[in-house]
Amino acid sequence: MASDSGIASVDAVALRGGAESARSDSLVVEEPLEIRLDGAPLAVTMRTPGHDLELTAGFLVTEGIARDFGAVTSIAHCDAERNTVDVRTEPGAAGIARPEPRAFVASSACGLCGKATIESVRARAPALHQDATRVAARVLYTLPEKLRAAQPVFRATGALHAAGLFAADGSLLCAREDVGRHNAVDKVVGWAALDRKLPLAGTVLLVSGRIGFEIAQKALVAGIPIVAAISGPSSLAVELAREGGMTLAAFLRGESLSVYAGRERIELP
Amino acid sequence: MASDSGIASVDAVALRGGAESARSDSLVVEEPLEIRLDGAPLAVTMRTPGHDLELTAGFLVTEGIARDFGAVTSIAHCDAERNTVDVRTEPGAAGIARPEPRAFVASSACGLCGKATIESVRARAPALHQDATRVAARVLYTLPEKLRAAQPVFRATGALHAAGLFAADGSLLCAREDVGRHNAVDKVVGWAALDRKLPLAGTVLLVSGRIGFEIAQKALVAGIPIVAAISGPSSLAVELAREGGMTLAAFLRGESLSVYAGRERIELP
Repeated sequence: MASDSGIASVDAVALRGGAESARSDSLVVEEPLEIRLDGAPLAVTMRTPGHDLELTAGFLVTEGIARDFGAVTSIAHCDAERNTVDVRTEPGAAGIARPEPRAFVASSACGLCGKATIESVRARAPALHQDATRVAARVLYTLPEKLRAAQPVFRATGALHAAGLFAADGSLLCAREDVGRHNAVDKVVGWAALDRKLPLAGTVLLVSGRIGFEIAQKALVAGIPIVAAISGPSSLAVELAREGGMTLAAFLRGESLSVYAGRERIELP
Repeated sequence: MASDSGIASVDAVALRGGAESARSDSLVVEEPLEIRLDGAPLAVTMRTPGHDLELTAGFLVTEGIARDFGAVTSIAHCDAERNTVDVRTEPGAAGIARPEPRAFVASSACGLCGKATIESVRARAPALHQDATRVAARVLYTLPEKLRAAQPVFRATGALHAAGLFAADGSLLCAREDVGRHNAVDKVVGWAALDRKLPLAGTVLLVSGRIGFEIAQKALVAGIPIVAAISGPSSLAVELAREGGMTLAAFLRGESLSVYAGRERIELP
């Protein structure tokens, strides 16, 4: 999986109706960036590499940390992988609102590299290589319409994420909507948790938009073997799916889709 | 702005070519939810109200906090606004990975209600009511195509967010892409910060997708008076734009758009 200019080339299998062909797809690169403030960890964000110093500067401003940007004396990468940025500020500057330690750090990942991030997820979620679920491609083709039919708020507002959990025969188990992509998935997983249905072996999760690392991570932790999306995946989502033994299908439109991991779970006529 | 079933009814102005009409739009509701773990603040997430207990349960599972969900003894709302949920666990249970204090809390908002969240932003960002920027509707109509032309990674991958900063005459100042919607905006604001161009008076920010509260917040903190989007806004983004004196235009498609705040900055022929 080579990366250049935010684009990674990834092997995929294209399914069209009952036909199958191998191809190489261009995916957007996703990697963690760790931001440090005067050497102390401040935040980890999953981002597309490139313009990292701008991303850091903007984060400092828009999150209210650099209330006086003039107090920032330097912003620079500090590791060979270019996934860590250190911000230096004037000692004692009043314009810097130093958050409580770890206030922004939303995961245990340390921003070293995608591989370390995947390993930290793998450490707390068993891989699903042994999950024997199979789903017919013709069943996958029907899921987007079923999810749309279960989205009352989207129909009214035209602006919402959705996640749907399906059995392998295509029957809808649970559909939830939210302004937050991750929240829609958490609502579905939480529905299962409250009903003591975890782990979710034998199921398919469909998300209305894109699949980034965090969506794939949530599905893996919940034990969902097959994840599908209407739009495309990120490079790191594909890497996690492959490492975690999941099936990842995307660009699910009409009678076509692309498979990036776990092809063996999808059956053609 | 009444809310029911995740949908809020909001006054809007529809522009079609050079014509204007008032109407009422249905927007997705966005409100903060504070999650507490045995009484201690754990996380604040911006979400669409509804299925809050499922959202909380799923968050606990997928973020690796409830490694044994059986150790969770109760999940319940604990405030009249139903924007705070408290999770109770068995004392000393090994299946609960208790994060460091505030590890997940990504803002200073305390999850009480949307109004308090807006006030916490307003406390650190001056309102823009006095910004006298004007932009022609016919200029706004041209921005989506200009942004798409500046998205090389989207063209290759079909899965990416973009943010573009424009002058009021429609000239592109800076365009950035990222897997993260917020990151694209932070990269644009950071570009300006590093070039000592803040605050961004007289500019228009266009985002490729939806406008939630956090995008509106970032624009306000950066001093951007006009924010536009290809897709729709959330209820809380509209409230913040109105309180903060910003112009918010959305559903920018062809020669049409909807204005939810700051109509006076948009000129018709």
